[in-house]
Amino acid sequence: MEKLNHATIQEKLETVEGWTVQDEKWLVKKYRFKSYLHGIRFVNKIAELSERENHHPFIAIDYIVVTLKLSSWKANGITELDLKLIEEYDQLYYSKA
Amino acid sequence: MEKLNHATIQEKLETVEGWTVQDEKWLVKKYRFKSYLHGIRFVNKIAELSERENHHPFIAIDYIVVTLKLSSWKANGITELDLKLIEEYDQLYYSKA
Repeated sequence: MEKLNHATIQEKLETVEGWTVQDEKWLVKKYRFKSYLHGIRFVNKIAELSERENHHPFIAIDYIVVTLKLSSWKANGITELDLKLIEEYDQLYYSKA
Repeated sequence: MEKLNHATIQEKLETVEGWTVQDEKWLVKKYRFKSYLHGIRFVNKIAELSERENHHPFIAIDYIVVTLKLSSWKANGITELDLKLIEEYDQLYYSKA
């Protein structure tokens, strides 16, 4: 999968919330939870999805704030897969399941 | 609980493996796992312990490497509680349960 150009990424980011680009190759978002264990539950859902897709974001847990940081190292940048996954992460965050 | 001095912390660190001090107030260790899901399982155990102790380390998951970073913000440094918890983290890592 090929690395996308800046314009394509920016266009996509206008349709999602809270995602930013870091160092031109990482998609980053901070998710906030009402409790620590809500955050941990989200991390487990992200982990399950990541295994299924074989694409693992960097995850940081700072009490009730979970940061996800995603890139495609083989492409040395952001790909269609990354843009697809950030939408799925958001869905997991907003779903009540 | 009071912040410990450098000598007390160093003495303790000689009895554990892989823990270092960062910026004079963080205890840091990187744990490596044989698979991503083994790492995630460890994170869940750490989360459970953290809730029980009401003391939550910063956790970073970078594929099969999990980094824990611990401090006592109220004391603005490392306390007895932190030194007790790093031993418990190690026990969770080395236990097969």
